[in-house]
Amino acid sequence: MRNIKLTIAYDGTNYHGFQEQRGTGLLTIQEAMEDCLTRLAGERIQVVGAGRTDAGVHARGQVINFRNPNWPIPIGRIPLALNGILPDDIVVLSAEEVPEEFHSRFSAKAKTYSYCIWNDRIPSPFYRLYSYFMPVPLNVKDMEQAALNLLGSHDFKCFQASGSTVKNTVRTLYQADILTDGPLVKLVFTGDGFLYNMVRIMVGTLVQAGLGKIKPGQVVEILQACNRVMAGPTFPPQGLCMEQVVY
Amino acid sequence: MRNIKLTIAYDGTNYHGFQEQRGTGLLTIQEAMEDCLTRLAGERIQVVGAGRTDAGVHARGQVINFRNPNWPIPIGRIPLALNGILPDDIVVLSAEEVPEEFHSRFSAKAKTYSYCIWNDRIPSPFYRLYSYFMPVPLNVKDMEQAALNLLGSHDFKCFQASGSTVKNTVRTLYQADILTDGPLVKLVFTGDGFLYNMVRIMVGTLVQAGLGKIKPGQVVEILQACNRVMAGPTFPPQGLCMEQVVY
Repeated sequence: MRNIKLTIAYDGTNYHGFQEQRGTGLLTIQEAMEDCLTRLAGERIQVVGAGRTDAGVHARGQVINFRNPNWPIPIGRIPLALNGILPDDIVVLSAEEVPEEFHSRFSAKAKTYSYCIWNDRIPSPFYRLYSYFMPVPLNVKDMEQAALNLLGSHDFKCFQASGSTVKNTVRTLYQADILTDGPLVKLVFTGDGFLYNMVRIMVGTLVQAGLGKIKPGQVVEILQACNRVMAGPTFPPQGLCMEQVVY
Repeated sequence: MRNIKLTIAYDGTNYHGFQEQRGTGLLTIQEAMEDCLTRLAGERIQVVGAGRTDAGVHARGQVINFRNPNWPIPIGRIPLALNGILPDDIVVLSAEEVPEEFHSRFSAKAKTYSYCIWNDRIPSPFYRLYSYFMPVPLNVKDMEQAALNLLGSHDFKCFQASGSTVKNTVRTLYQADILTDGPLVKLVFTGDGFLYNMVRIMVGTLVQAGLGKIKPGQVVEILQACNRVMAGPTFPPQGLCMEQVVY
């Protein structure tokens, strides 16, 4: 049995998320990948993704893998072969053969996500699909201060979409940086794992600090409360991008 | 009579160019602007654009103007008022009142256009609508050498779409720079005016130099031939962006 790992990038604008929703008629990244892989293999291929990005969420380094005993194409030629038949908003960046036990989700040691805010009085037509437009000025220093409180191992229960049923809500955050480039404010998070909507709720909470609605230190209390209503709102999907998965 | 100048940016992907094509059912930038201005003014507004960008061509600094005796909105509030009702792929960057004789096209002293090529083996899902994908490596030094030959005043007849009826085809090019940023090769042209498709044909010609199909010095012969078939192909619209108009 061969196990093949692909690193892919996609513009999620036109997709109903990563995970397959067969029978619904809704387009997903997983189905687009599986359909093209199945065409190349001549037999049904099913993929596993490192993260189930939501509708409208993008990726610069999503990782998927699939197992197949008869895979016909040399590994080095997979990107070109797939890119030739994939829709042009999904791209295979690289391919490699991995040990049979490799699992794109369970083998992941860390993931990096970014979230872009276009923080200017005037929106940008070119970033509208890749950022969230906020005309009110953000205090980036306060956001940075607030973000420091998220670093390390915590119970991130309050930064999880309400209704989630995950039992262990402790996660470790290694990076919570705020970068600026002109009107762009980019929040970058690296952690050993993320709860459902965790990044978008952390962004909503840090933005509250950036708007002066909470003090940076209050993030500590929010974490300790373990109550979703204490944290900020879930920010919209289009600013979110899955950047990298580390194994 | 008041004369108002607007600087606008747009993602041209979803439009059939700048110029109105009323009655055809095709969406254009001019019509979108006129429809929104007419809503604000309560009477029919017609605009003039500095350049008639083609379908799929973008703008970061297109300039339009319109004349109206009864314009109701303070100049400083025009961007916000228009951006509130325009589709989100068109944005008004600034507004100012100008002398009655100002004409966005005829008063223009110079214009700057850019053309982006994504020069990498692997395409980018994020630049697919804003660049032209070329997997074959370009020799940027040769393109720069070739571009130098375009600078100055020349008869650019061979860099004009065939079938054009413009009589005076002499134009002056002030800038023909090639900038690189990772896989992006960005060609920037500033001139006192551009013939129809001139930028996209210059790009097609410089790319031939970048691929070694012509020598950089051959651009001189191409210019002198005054024959469209001597120059390179017209490059596709999505890489082109109207950057700035100088008055």
